[in-house]
Amino acid sequence: METDLIMLLESVKRGEVSVDEAALKLKGKAFEDIGYAKVDLHREKMQGASEVVYGEGKTAEQIVGIVRTLMSNGQKNVLITRMSEDKAATVAAAVELKYNKEGRIGYVGECRAPGGLGKIVIATGGTSDIPVAEEAAVTAEFHGNEVVRLYDVGVAGIHRLMAHRELIMDATVIIAIAGMEGALASVVGGMADCPVIAVPTSVGYGAAFEGLSALLSMLNSCASGVSVVNIDNGFGAGYLAGMINHVHKKDN
Amino acid sequence: METDLIMLLESVKRGEVSVDEAALKLKGKAFEDIGYAKVDLHREKMQGASEVVYGEGKTAEQIVGIVRTLMSNGQKNVLITRMSEDKAATVAAAVELKYNKEGRIGYVGECRAPGGLGKIVIATGGTSDIPVAEEAAVTAEFHGNEVVRLYDVGVAGIHRLMAHRELIMDATVIIAIAGMEGALASVVGGMADCPVIAVPTSVGYGAAFEGLSALLSMLNSCASGVSVVNIDNGFGAGYLAGMINHVHKKDN
Amino acid sequence: METDLIMLLESVKRGEVSVDEAALKLKGKAFEDIGYAKVDLHREKMQGASEVVYGEGKTAEQIVGIVRTLMSNGQKNVLITRMSEDKAATVAAAVELKYNKEGRIGYVGECRAPGGLGKIVIATGGTSDIPVAEEAAVTAEFHGNEVVRLYDVGVAGIHRLMAHRELIMDATVIIAIAGMEGALASVVGGMADCPVIAVPTSVGYGAAFEGLSALLSMLNSCASGVSVVNIDNGFGAGYLAGMINHVHKKDN
Amino acid sequence: METDLIMLLESVKRGEVSVDEAALKLKGKAFEDIGYAKVDLHREKMQGASEVVYGEGKTAEQIVGIVRTLMSNGQKNVLITRMSEDKAATVAAAVELKYNKEGRIGYVGECRAPGGLGKIVIATGGTSDIPVAEEAAVTAEFHGNEVVRLYDVGVAGIHRLMAHRELIMDATVIIAIAGMEGALASVVGGMADCPVIAVPTSVGYGAAFEGLSALLSMLNSCASGVSVVNIDNGFGAGYLAGMINHVHKKDN
Amino acid sequence: METDLIMLLESVKRGEVSVDEAALKLKGKAFEDIGYAKVDLHREKMQGASEVVYGEGKTAEQIVGIVRTLMSNGQKNVLITRMSEDKAATVAAAVELKYNKEGRIGYVGECRAPGGLGKIVIATGGTSDIPVAEEAAVTAEFHGNEVVRLYDVGVAGIHRLMAHRELIMDATVIIAIAGMEGALASVVGGMADCPVIAVPTSVGYGAAFEGLSALLSMLNSCASGVSVVNIDNGFGAGYLAGMINHVHKKDN
Amino acid sequence: METDLIMLLESVKRGEVSVDEAALKLKGKAFEDIGYAKVDLHREKMQGASEVVYGEGKTAEQIVGIVRTLMSNGQKNVLITRMSEDKAATVAAAVELKYNKEGRIGYVGECRAPGGLGKIVIATGGTSDIPVAEEAAVTAEFHGNEVVRLYDVGVAGIHRLMAHRELIMDATVIIAIAGMEGALASVVGGMADCPVIAVPTSVGYGAAFEGLSALLSMLNSCASGVSVVNIDNGFGAGYLAGMINHVHKKDN
Amino acid sequence: METDLIMLLESVKRGEVSVDEAALKLKGKAFEDIGYAKVDLHREKMQGASEVVYGEGKTAEQIVGIVRTLMSNGQKNVLITRMSEDKAATVAAAVELKYNKEGRIGYVGECRAPGGLGKIVIATGGTSDIPVAEEAAVTAEFHGNEVVRLYDVGVAGIHRLMAHRELIMDATVIIAIAGMEGALASVVGGMADCPVIAVPTSVGYGAAFEGLSALLSMLNSCASGVSVVNIDNGFGAGYLAGMINHVHKKDN
Amino acid sequence: METDLIMLLESVKRGEVSVDEAALKLKGKAFEDIGYAKVDLHREKMQGASEVVYGEGKTAEQIVGIVRTLMSNGQKNVLITRMSEDKAATVAAAVELKYNKEGRIGYVGECRAPGGLGKIVIATGGTSDIPVAEEAAVTAEFHGNEVVRLYDVGVAGIHRLMAHRELIMDATVIIAIAGMEGALASVVGGMADCPVIAVPTSVGYGAAFEGLSALLSMLNSCASGVSVVNIDNGFGAGYLAGMINHVHKKDN
Repeated sequence: METDLIMLLESVKRGEVSVDEAALKLKGKAFEDIGYAKVDLHREKMQGASEVVYGEGKTAEQIVGIVRTLMSNGQKNVLITRMSEDKAATVAAAVELKYNKEGRIGYVGECRAPGGLGKIVIATGGTSDIPVAEEAAVTAEFHGNEVVRLYDVGVAGIHRLMAHRELIMDATVIIAIAGMEGALASVVGGMADCPVIAVPTSVGYGAAFEGLSALLSMLNSCASGVSVVNIDNGFGAGYLAGMINHVHKKDN
Repeated sequence: METDLIMLLESVKRGEVSVDEAALKLKGKAFEDIGYAKVDLHREKMQGASEVVYGEGKTAEQIVGIVRTLMSNGQKNVLITRMSEDKAATVAAAVELKYNKEGRIGYVGECRAPGGLGKIVIATGGTSDIPVAEEAAVTAEFHGNEVVRLYDVGVAGIHRLMAHRELIMDATVIIAIAGMEGALASVVGGMADCPVIAVPTSVGYGAAFEGLSALLSMLNSCASGVSVVNIDNGFGAGYLAGMINHVHKKDN
Repeated sequence: METDLIMLLESVKRGEVSVDEAALKLKGKAFEDIGYAKVDLHREKMQGASEVVYGEGKTAEQIVGIVRTLMSNGQKNVLITRMSEDKAATVAAAVELKYNKEGRIGYVGECRAPGGLGKIVIATGGTSDIPVAEEAAVTAEFHGNEVVRLYDVGVAGIHRLMAHRELIMDATVIIAIAGMEGALASVVGGMADCPVIAVPTSVGYGAAFEGLSALLSMLNSCASGVSVVNIDNGFGAGYLAGMINHVHKKDN
Repeated sequence: METDLIMLLESVKRGEVSVDEAALKLKGKAFEDIGYAKVDLHREKMQGASEVVYGEGKTAEQIVGIVRTLMSNGQKNVLITRMSEDKAATVAAAVELKYNKEGRIGYVGECRAPGGLGKIVIATGGTSDIPVAEEAAVTAEFHGNEVVRLYDVGVAGIHRLMAHRELIMDATVIIAIAGMEGALASVVGGMADCPVIAVPTSVGYGAAFEGLSALLSMLNSCASGVSVVNIDNGFGAGYLAGMINHVHKKDN
Repeated sequence: METDLIMLLESVKRGEVSVDEAALKLKGKAFEDIGYAKVDLHREKMQGASEVVYGEGKTAEQIVGIVRTLMSNGQKNVLITRMSEDKAATVAAAVELKYNKEGRIGYVGECRAPGGLGKIVIATGGTSDIPVAEEAAVTAEFHGNEVVRLYDVGVAGIHRLMAHRELIMDATVIIAIAGMEGALASVVGGMADCPVIAVPTSVGYGAAFEGLSALLSMLNSCASGVSVVNIDNGFGAGYLAGMINHVHKKDN
Repeated sequence: METDLIMLLESVKRGEVSVDEAALKLKGKAFEDIGYAKVDLHREKMQGASEVVYGEGKTAEQIVGIVRTLMSNGQKNVLITRMSEDKAATVAAAVELKYNKEGRIGYVGECRAPGGLGKIVIATGGTSDIPVAEEAAVTAEFHGNEVVRLYDVGVAGIHRLMAHRELIMDATVIIAIAGMEGALASVVGGMADCPVIAVPTSVGYGAAFEGLSALLSMLNSCASGVSVVNIDNGFGAGYLAGMINHVHKKDN
Repeated sequence: METDLIMLLESVKRGEVSVDEAALKLKGKAFEDIGYAKVDLHREKMQGASEVVYGEGKTAEQIVGIVRTLMSNGQKNVLITRMSEDKAATVAAAVELKYNKEGRIGYVGECRAPGGLGKIVIATGGTSDIPVAEEAAVTAEFHGNEVVRLYDVGVAGIHRLMAHRELIMDATVIIAIAGMEGALASVVGGMADCPVIAVPTSVGYGAAFEGLSALLSMLNSCASGVSVVNIDNGFGAGYLAGMINHVHKKDN
Repeated sequence: METDLIMLLESVKRGEVSVDEAALKLKGKAFEDIGYAKVDLHREKMQGASEVVYGEGKTAEQIVGIVRTLMSNGQKNVLITRMSEDKAATVAAAVELKYNKEGRIGYVGECRAPGGLGKIVIATGGTSDIPVAEEAAVTAEFHGNEVVRLYDVGVAGIHRLMAHRELIMDATVIIAIAGMEGALASVVGGMADCPVIAVPTSVGYGAAFEGLSALLSMLNSCASGVSVVNIDNGFGAGYLAGMINHVHKKDN
């Protein structure tokens, strides 16, 4: 970055780049305005990740519009989260979409080839947590990670979890997804020797308070190596897990 | 009770009991007023339990006063909870007191001989939960129960808990005590085939919110057979555990 | 359990059981995976209770699938909770279902014959609490308990409750169900000499905060022997009450 | 009031009162400024009650200053609430003070002679609620009411309360004071046929959340005729009870 | 009550009342069970008020059933709260119903003739609070009180309230109803010299948190003589106001 | 005001104004009652702002009624907030309405000509915050302010905000609107040298808790010059911004 | 800013500024690092305000260190908030300090000469709110504003506030400071025609919940032109009020 | 693990390991009980991390006892968190301790040599967050990581953060620590292309609610790659950051 700046300034000095061009670059016009959203065209390069569209609260038409703007600017793969089946059908009529119904998530283009340091294990406490898990799984796969699904291994039947001990020991990153008491994160965290991303879900009723119980529980995990994302935030967990799985030496 | 009432009324009819006496009895003067407390003299018979004095917010002198009133009315054993070491010293100077410093609990007289159907296992997530556990343990022992202590078996080191699996399978009642994420109750609940009384503790910091996190977690336990008492309420758990351990057929 | 382990290892030593078989057994493959749920086939033996299916968030088809898997593995009786009338109709078309509309609960097979130490009394504060009470009642009956229903005995008309004093004195376990201020648990707890399981309900409005008021009230009960389950958790209370009613000496 | 206004305007018209005087009166300069407080000299007449000083956060010197200003303006009786023993000692050295240590409340001058329609019964759930009860009692007595104290009649021992049924039936107003689950208000409310003022107290621990549990419980009381004041607000309850006990026909 | 008991016992003594009869009476069978509700037939006498049916969560058929049971037991006037227009139509087809659409409240029979010590003023902060106000107004009128409605006098336009100062000074009881910041109760409380019953409403959005803001505000009112009922509890306020308006000397 | 009072009193003295007239004026009958609302006719003069109708919870017919009353009293411009498209259509059939669909806001008459000291910049964190922003924008424009819209400049892409640094430096007032973590207010507050009005929105899910997260975040802003209005309160922000933009010297 | 950038780049082009210098400038090294704080030397120019030191959690020595760094960089006037009397004494020994004990605030150097458009009125509900008010007052005075103090004008005695109506009408900005129910902001907001900054205080007890009640109340104010700062944030209110009082046309 | 099990069973089969020994091993007696804590001797191997002692609530003597047990079992390096200066002095007298006063953290033995993939950047919003930051820093250094400290770069002075853009771009993991509005995490998350661990701190007052505001803010971060640990949990963040910095391919 530093070197970019120096190089740009040197180009200005040498007259290779005009002052106006440089000013423009330095102000970083890195997005295109399409009215209802500032589409961020440079994020892929900057964050090492393809563009993601958050579908909630957007119409199918707006989603298509954003996707096309991204594609016409060279973005080949676009992930769309929180998109209902209905919207997905409309979007699929306009662009080629691969859609995961359970996770309410889809993408245009291709998943990157699986890479990184190893496998991401996604564990859920119950079957009701699966939508969040699928959102995480597709997000991770889209960004080039191998995902192992380990669903319905809640702590009230600890033997189910124990039976998959090796899987847990082998993971590079684990995503632990649970509602209600959210204890899965602590138990998995205690068994594993890798980072555990805990995702509280809004599954439950009464004193589950829409995920608050699981959230607090996970934040208070007595196991080391556990961190937490927002309630039901499968995308966030999947993205972060992929980031960790691709951590690498930087040259500087 | 029904028969008592019928018998009393028949005595009235026969003139054996005066109207005034009967009125008095029917109004149930079952306590003695010593100014700052209505000491309940009949509870032992009624609830099958000896009298308990809640020490918090009472001076050592008031505690001694209540204990003596109870004793002069025939109560031989009195349990005193939430009594600091200082107060205990003052109380001990006036009456013969057995005191458990960790649990801040003591008693005058004797524990009832251990009985009931089996053993009460008291498990804690960490060492900081021990004061609550000791309050529960002494309460249960005082009321005639055998107690097995199983401390520091939190879920982040699930193998520690697993190593005591048989103990857990053998229990008649289990008290699971934990702060922070309170996951112990769910894991123990899933392993055991007996009632589990969960006690959230105020151990932890930040998002533990003085026990709220553990409380919510335990209320949302996905294991069957788990119920919850107030934060740090070791006495309540010990008392209830003893009650369950002494459940018996009633003649009617 | 200990002896099982020793016996298994001795079989291995004697060559009666192959290493692979033993490894398999030790890893405890005690469940069958049917895709959307790990059906737990051994729980009846392990927990002394028949299998329960939590119907919320499952389609009628999924419920039927789980029930059939359980039945084909020898489970004769299956309880299904939180199942709407609509789903129940679909399930009933596939398997023989007994359904309780008020409690939104049903079962396949038979209730176990009533047994245990005595009767479970289920009291509610008002008529709006009856759905939760019926969930508790059917759960307890399914697991072989005699249930006495005592509905609409809220504390604002304390004479109604007083009129049933003997019932309360006769119970082995009491389930006290109330919304709004949740005071029923404390009053019943003070009258009874047996364990009281308090169930806060989401009945009420305004400062009832969806059951929070009753929940806090019950957790703070000044009566001994009271513990609490989640808001509206009739099943949990019924199951635990049955467990307590069947508490027994263990041989070891 | 209306007539006052008309009369004043007529005096202006007749030239009996100058424009400036009238303007002053109409702007209502009904208080005297002593720097740290606008002492309200006309409240006794306006509200039918003597002046009250809220002692919390005021120094003993400030209290004395306010009391003297009030007295030099003709106020004979002054009530001072939330005044610690220490401050009371300093105040007592300067003015003649009657002080109630338990209620942390005192007054200069005399209580008005007991009057009104009947008796105010003040009931508490436990002995720890007595400080709040005494604050209420002295406040009511100061304002000319007969008070009956009925302490330690919590609902977990419902027979204690039942034994005083007649007292409750005889009251003109009842103040029900309780911490923890706050159920006393509902039970008393159901027994009584007069207004019940509920005072939640901060007595309790854990899920009592400094009085929140009792507060919510009381707000949700299913008994009619119950209203609630702030946590630990004995003064507010005593003042309101006196107001109700002195309700009377107005001439207009 | 005391005398009743004495008299009953003396009748037993004289053989005028059989033991069984007396036992029955003493157990107080003062209600009739109609399956889904214990209809309380004696409350009118006991509480000086006609019976009230809480319509929420009851079907029109259940309401009709309860009303008829009450009427066939001699209850002439029945108030029904929280009853939607639809239900009201069904109920009106079965019994003669007077219905107030805004307040979602109706009654069978007649309002008692207005009596008591004076007028009840019902003030609201805005027009959105009127439904709660009408519930209060009809409740008070049903129980024999004169009601003065003073709507839309919120504190942000303090001159509107000031213009009705005399009305406020003339009231025997005031009901102050407001959502959002709930400041009306404090301002009215400061202006009035009679009891003020504050009703927080769920009117507002965002940080109004469904009435929590107004509730807390009203509980913290710095004006004396203010007490609070549950959010949106117009009935409770109207009933209590009527009770205060009818406070009277008791003979004992 | 003072002079008005003096002048009125002097008119009374001189007999130019009758006592009754003066009494009426002094009681300030400054509004007209149309049944369901006290329409405030003098507010425009008093607050330097045209009348605003809060449409939420009012029927289209009520809105039309209020608008007409205002107009027949000389109010030319009326702003109507929180009005759904459906209601707007009905209102538009009765009076000439300009309607902004996104902001759910409309007005009858004209916006005042843009004036004041400078420009109001309205910035949003995301596209989902635009409805709140439009409510603010139309409100400010209606009251005679120039508005610059700067949407979708959330802090996770800080370069987008940086690219508009000059706009921010040039503003007279800034409205920063954001949901989720609400960080926009702090960042903008740190960059700007003018007052920043922060509007938390209910955009987000899970731990956003309907805007609570953004609200708390904004209240805790470490930047100076930031204040906060209610969640989603675009009107309040727009109105206040206009007030600040028109702040001026007062003659007295 | 834009022009600065263009000019800098042109200087680079012309070789007048070296690439390194330009890089440095573009990275904006506008502060000096003194170890425990990045002292911001350019803020006065940038924000039109002198530097402020937040004293809480800093030792007197650290405060002196920061003050001296600022002064040696040309800052003549420094405001220090949240500084206890003890710390102030130590600071005063090292630098010349003017200290306001009630507001726990002091400054080195001079207050700017009073200027701006008019007066800032600071009103408090009670005497306990004065410390917050003084923090606001000194902050505003330090930044060159005339402040009018109007203390103890809470809404429960609305006539006190009414008596100062003209003051309120004359203000350019009003700061309304109140704890408990926080109603002052709404009433003042309704009376005034200028921006009102509401400051909730932690004054109160019980359901005041450390200022939460006042905070919510103020956020829900039904008066227009009211915005809110953090609980007890006198500094923030004073600073913002000064900013508004100095709002001016910008040249661009 | 699988292979271990197979090997062990084969040893049993071959008679090389006795049944009892095998049973013992299979029950996993991997810890030593020293009374007040189950010291976990195998964790270093299992989790790739040295043992950590949580000092809060432990006496200096207990800390020394645990440290010695660990050391006598071959653990050379022990980290002790949440240890006050006083305790540290006592511990230092018994074992050789390196202590960081600001972070209240110390260790016996050595930090592992810095390794992993790159640098961990620890950024704080203010100077008051430094204690949490130092806890994180020492934890990370102890586990063999290079740490770069970047303190006092809060978002209200965004240029300070911008000036260190390269540092942020160069990091392998970033720990963003902030109280109050906690916006730092989002801004850093948007700038960085590596995992960001957010640590809310209890710094702030009023509506900061002991860290709740920052916690919610961080959970709602709109930047990707951000996850959150408990309030003030510097250790957890430092440990997890080290784990991510050492993520590596697993052989299986």
